[in-house]
Amino acid sequence: MAELRKDIISGRWVIVNTDDPKRPEDFEQARYEKKDGPCPFCYGNEYMTPPEIDAIRYENTPANAPGWLVRVVPNKFPVLQIEGNLDSHGIGIFDMMNGIGAHEVIIETPYNDKSLTDLNDEEVSMAIEMFCRRCLDLKKDKRFKYILIFKNHGVLAGASIRHEHSQLIALPMVPKNVVEELNGARRYYDLRERCVFCDIIRQELSEKERVVSENNDFVSFCPFVSRFPFEIHIYPKKHEVNFYTLESNKRLNLAKILKEVLLRLKGCLFDPAFNFVIHTAPLAGNNYDYYHWHIEIIPRISPVAGFEWGTGFYVVSTPPEIAINYLREVKI
Amino acid sequence: MAELRKDIISGRWVIVNTDDPKRPEDFEQARYEKKDGPCPFCYGNEYMTPPEIDAIRYENTPANAPGWLVRVVPNKFPVLQIEGNLDSHGIGIFDMMNGIGAHEVIIETPYNDKSLTDLNDEEVSMAIEMFCRRCLDLKKDKRFKYILIFKNHGVLAGASIRHEHSQLIALPMVPKNVVEELNGARRYYDLRERCVFCDIIRQELSEKERVVSENNDFVSFCPFVSRFPFEIHIYPKKHEVNFYTLESNKRLNLAKILKEVLLRLKGCLFDPAFNFVIHTAPLAGNNYDYYHWHIEIIPRISPVAGFEWGTGFYVVSTPPEIAINYLREVKI
Repeated sequence: MAELRKDIISGRWVIVNTDDPKRPEDFEQARYEKKDGPCPFCYGNEYMTPPEIDAIRYENTPANAPGWLVRVVPNKFPVLQIEGNLDSHGIGIFDMMNGIGAHEVIIETPYNDKSLTDLNDEEVSMAIEMFCRRCLDLKKDKRFKYILIFKNHGVLAGASIRHEHSQLIALPMVPKNVVEELNGARRYYDLRERCVFCDIIRQELSEKERVVSENNDFVSFCPFVSRFPFEIHIYPKKHEVNFYTLESNKRLNLAKILKEVLLRLKGCLFDPAFNFVIHTAPLAGNNYDYYHWHIEIIPRISPVAGFEWGTGFYVVSTPPEIAINYLREVKI
Repeated sequence: MAELRKDIISGRWVIVNTDDPKRPEDFEQARYEKKDGPCPFCYGNEYMTPPEIDAIRYENTPANAPGWLVRVVPNKFPVLQIEGNLDSHGIGIFDMMNGIGAHEVIIETPYNDKSLTDLNDEEVSMAIEMFCRRCLDLKKDKRFKYILIFKNHGVLAGASIRHEHSQLIALPMVPKNVVEELNGARRYYDLRERCVFCDIIRQELSEKERVVSENNDFVSFCPFVSRFPFEIHIYPKKHEVNFYTLESNKRLNLAKILKEVLLRLKGCLFDPAFNFVIHTAPLAGNNYDYYHWHIEIIPRISPVAGFEWGTGFYVVSTPPEIAINYLREVKI
């Protein structure tokens, strides 16, 4: 089982893969995309993955066989395991616990050559429905404190399989960056009795300078304090704490704005590698009324260098006010 | 002039390049190392850089001409500018100031085909002497609160010029990650009246499980809570707050251990891209007795994926206890 280790200085947790450690030569290979054998995420190859956890399927098709539109399976190489207990303990001055958690793969399409941007709005909407469904199911397991949904698209973004998919990781603690974001939002709320994200959305919508697109329910913009060139965030316009309670009638509008943003990035940055991460409140515990869920999309077009690692201080080579012009010019 | 913008939620500062914004096609090119024209860091091409700030030279050689061993020049494309004032102000709910700072390049060798690992101990020691000298000089400018020295080696680590060099950035604020590290160290000190780094060094030296190498003055080890596979830290064994006050009789031992660590990484990871960052206390202000300077070395062998960006929670695919075996096996 993997180990969870806590840095006593920063409070950061890391997952250490003690079961199947990578050798130096594994990294050498990882620099290049792997050769295409049969794809485990394609129709007819369902036997290549662990048995499916959930799926949206055509009527009367059996599990683990073709006929699905969205399919969820356990990650074959999970960074955390679902069985066991946390067994929190110390080693000298160090703190650690067992690597308990869930690590799932959400396959958004059976077609190997399709990206989210090639799917129709209803298909993307089904993927979003599945994201929510998995959160609501895993939320029942009281060991889990946080669920993270993210996509690595392209080798430079950390994807090891070309077939479009997202990942879900359920964690036994709230991770450091999330705690920081929560604390920052709470400080603002304590001071002004308003949601900081709502205030940012209001300013962006009134200035319009950095807004990529909007519809009735959602807005996307290049944040004033972007960390990366062409970074884009998507927010629900109405204050909402949790992603996974998204009302079904808003799903299609989220699918539409997500697809539009990704199409604009693809059109203007030559089909870049990117990550997206859904930021949502922890599963239980406090009242997180001061929090506002959102999606952060980061094109991986320039390497993060020593300066950024050393300081958490980013250099943005294209200001959001300039990036927006390129994004708006894309014909979609 | 660049803009410094502050994230109101996380407190993170970013530098936004508003002067010479990159276009989408610039990123496409940046994925590959640039074609070799004449190298601005080689003997005879000194005219290609801005005039030198400092150098270690053979006697009777003039500035901005061959004859140097280590040369410091302003970065030709600085992320921050030395002239001007900070002009801190708000835009709606956002905070910003002008991009004031220093951005210098330290060229450790005149030879295009030499890396730090090809230099002799005395040559590496001279580079370290110059790192300290630049800090002591910039420290006189009271606008600067922090100096960061780092190296990007290889394209995957963010280097745009192949010729070996390090960079120095002087900042008008203490960056977020440094503040966090300081706060973590102070909390531990307040509780136990001991330096947390000294305690970690003591545990690592007594266990020996993760120690890469040591000499009279320094120790290097793969930290128990590594964020990256094959990450290595170098610490002075005796408690020291500031890097730049390094005594001259310890320079050679720092050069030796740095070179050994880099040789071991090179030997075991097929000459990987890497970053190193010197972590030192802020320039002035409080008493930072609880802090202990060190160098963090991060091989850039696996991409950082969405999970890490979203959570600040890292997955380490090779545990430090395993990585150490590969590092020790390297013949140097």
